[in-house]
Amino acid sequence: MERSVTFWFEFASTYSYLSVMRISSAAQARGVDVAWKPFLLGPIFAAQSWDTSLFNIYPAKGRYMWRDMQRICAARGLPFRRPDRFPQNGLAAARLALAAAEQDRIEAFAQAVFQAQFGDGADISAEPVLLDCLHKAGLDAALIDRAQSPGIKSALRGQTDAARAAGIFGAPSFTIGTELFWGDDRLEQALDHAAARTI
Amino acid sequence: MERSVTFWFEFASTYSYLSVMRISSAAQARGVDVAWKPFLLGPIFAAQSWDTSLFNIYPAKGRYMWRDMQRICAARGLPFRRPDRFPQNGLAAARLALAAAEQDRIEAFAQAVFQAQFGDGADISAEPVLLDCLHKAGLDAALIDRAQSPGIKSALRGQTDAARAAGIFGAPSFTIGTELFWGDDRLEQALDHAAARTI
Repeated sequence: MERSVTFWFEFASTYSYLSVMRISSAAQARGVDVAWKPFLLGPIFAAQSWDTSLFNIYPAKGRYMWRDMQRICAARGLPFRRPDRFPQNGLAAARLALAAAEQDRIEAFAQAVFQAQFGDGADISAEPVLLDCLHKAGLDAALIDRAQSPGIKSALRGQTDAARAAGIFGAPSFTIGTELFWGDDRLEQALDHAAARTI
Repeated sequence: MERSVTFWFEFASTYSYLSVMRISSAAQARGVDVAWKPFLLGPIFAAQSWDTSLFNIYPAKGRYMWRDMQRICAARGLPFRRPDRFPQNGLAAARLALAAAEQDRIEAFAQAVFQAQFGDGADISAEPVLLDCLHKAGLDAALIDRAQSPGIKSALRGQTDAARAAGIFGAPSFTIGTELFWGDDRLEQALDHAAARTI
């Protein structure tokens, strides 16, 4: 009997930060395994004719999101600092995350990247920032080269295609079989669904 | 010391159904008063160049919303039936709700309308449906005329303007002073915020 959830996240996404920081403990408490799947929202947004985040397209929604993040991070004791630029380019981080996954370190790396971006306000497309994240996750700088390999690039494209095929339109998202849950607000519901599953 | 939350809802909104059915008991449990404010999302959406709900503009988001509603209603023991048309025209219901408020019956009326729409799949722009809702709320059919009065019409326009001025971009929303909370998912957080307030 396998109880697992597939966790789809995008490195540029504010609400993905919230789930990346808590999914492991919440899943463990329910005996659920987590499959970490970074993907890119850019191509999915582009297919809907959005050229940036909805939070930029609709200013009232954007203003709200930043205040919402600030309140939630404060309540959860998470550091929060709004980066100068939003959304950031998460491509390099996503490729590196797949390289980190090959060494079973994707969670530590992803947490370091999200903390750099939304805890410190750093630019996660900058190589020095990413090198520091690799270091914090106990990973070698050589992963920068590995992340440029055709295998990693094509794996990321594949995950993005799979996300779209699963009906995903935002991040974070959680899938269990054909059931889709969207948003950090649905993390508990998704895990409860996975935990209740008897295959 | 006054502890209160302003509850902004739109009769066409699926997630407003969820909050309308539970805000009173959740607020009472925290010693918080609720000011019920129906408003129209149409003019607010139009100002952002949306001619319909985002759930129609973006099909993946729409498909997800209906499944999400179905799951949440099942978990909460709420009847749920997707109406043929979405979004419905909630203008008549909103005006009637303001007339019902004059008799301190806005909650009962709003609950009857949302149950008709999303519990039974009825068309809430149809007068027989609204008459039945008035009856269920213990209100007189004469409110149909009262709802057409200039005072009610202008009050609804005023509330819609106030919603926009408060930065509201969706429903349900909750405000406490200048703090805005959006979505049924933030109901508890909004009420906790109101309860913690010492003026």
